[in-house]
Amino acid sequence: MEKAFEYLNQYIEDGSIIGMGSGTTIEKYIPVMKDHIDRQDLSVEFLSTSLKTEKALQNLGLTVIHDAERVDAAIDGADQFTGNCLAVKGGGGSLMREKQVDYFAGRLILVAHERKKVEDFGGVEIPVEINQYLYRMTGRLLEATGAATQMRMAGGGLFVTDNGNYIVDCTYRTVDDPGELHQELVNIPGVVETGIFDRHIKEIVSFNEQGFKTYD
Amino acid sequence: MEKAFEYLNQYIEDGSIIGMGSGTTIEKYIPVMKDHIDRQDLSVEFLSTSLKTEKALQNLGLTVIHDAERVDAAIDGADQFTGNCLAVKGGGGSLMREKQVDYFAGRLILVAHERKKVEDFGGVEIPVEINQYLYRMTGRLLEATGAATQMRMAGGGLFVTDNGNYIVDCTYRTVDDPGELHQELVNIPGVVETGIFDRHIKEIVSFNEQGFKTYD
Repeated sequence: MEKAFEYLNQYIEDGSIIGMGSGTTIEKYIPVMKDHIDRQDLSVEFLSTSLKTEKALQNLGLTVIHDAERVDAAIDGADQFTGNCLAVKGGGGSLMREKQVDYFAGRLILVAHERKKVEDFGGVEIPVEINQYLYRMTGRLLEATGAATQMRMAGGGLFVTDNGNYIVDCTYRTVDDPGELHQELVNIPGVVETGIFDRHIKEIVSFNEQGFKTYD
Repeated sequence: MEKAFEYLNQYIEDGSIIGMGSGTTIEKYIPVMKDHIDRQDLSVEFLSTSLKTEKALQNLGLTVIHDAERVDAAIDGADQFTGNCLAVKGGGGSLMREKQVDYFAGRLILVAHERKKVEDFGGVEIPVEINQYLYRMTGRLLEATGAATQMRMAGGGLFVTDNGNYIVDCTYRTVDDPGELHQELVNIPGVVETGIFDRHIKEIVSFNEQGFKTYD
């Protein structure tokens, strides 16, 4: 993981605006990146994909902004990914903000453990963010696409995203075309965003206990 | 308008679940419909596309529900419509809930004054509901599609929808294919819903001072 993190540090340049993602891998990366910034005395600003990441960055004294004319690079995790740079994200529930920051970035680099690599998204839980209003109805429309659905729970109640929405985890036996599935889902009224990232990924940095490799 | 409203009453049947829209025309229709229900002694339940409509229905003693296995018909207004059953909605800011209720209905009937009929959506303000987070960034992505954009204001601040989102009104010189434009917009991260209703409309009831006619 250390080697992968060092590799990622190349994207943190002086004067750059960086999108920073969410999740356990990113949580481990942030202090490593902070060391890099201090050692090189870099001036960097950050946009964050979650309130949690925003706090983690600010706690280290890093500058978080909430608007930018450009985002030079975004670094984020992945719940699952394929060798041809498709990913499923949103396990932590931040999929909408992740897509906002990640897709706006000039370069989107994902980092994930090699065990998260899959051949395709058949059997994979795909998070879908939905409006609270009439959510059972939206759930039925999701089921009608062939998904086994499960409302995301937290602390005995329904999980609520940073945007005040719910998450439905949708699992399909097979997913032939993730881009097409995203289109179908995002067109269901009540669906706010899907966890299918089928575009914009420039590179996936995949690590294991031995080292890392990249897919692009 | 009265004749058009009488025509609409045919869709309010005993035992039916009705989606009820928002806007000035619908506000005028609701008491007419209530008379019809009382005269015929009908049992009807309603899903509403806005908090305002929900209150208007409840104030008349009508039953509002928040989930349903089916919606028999939805009756809603339109800000603009074409003779081939395309519509722009969301002038009142309820576009997402409107789409949820309207698209779920077995039959969607829109009612609007004949002056709201347009040849196409060139020059028409198309409301787009967006996430508050990084909204300026989302606005720039909307401008990049060729839109002149304006943030919806209310009472000196930014207008906030029932879902806690903002509205950007987007105007294009020409709109060749409304369905394609909806696809492009809904795929922009941060966009929650668009006011383009390019599907599911069964019938548009268009009235003027003389009478009414229908498009289907």
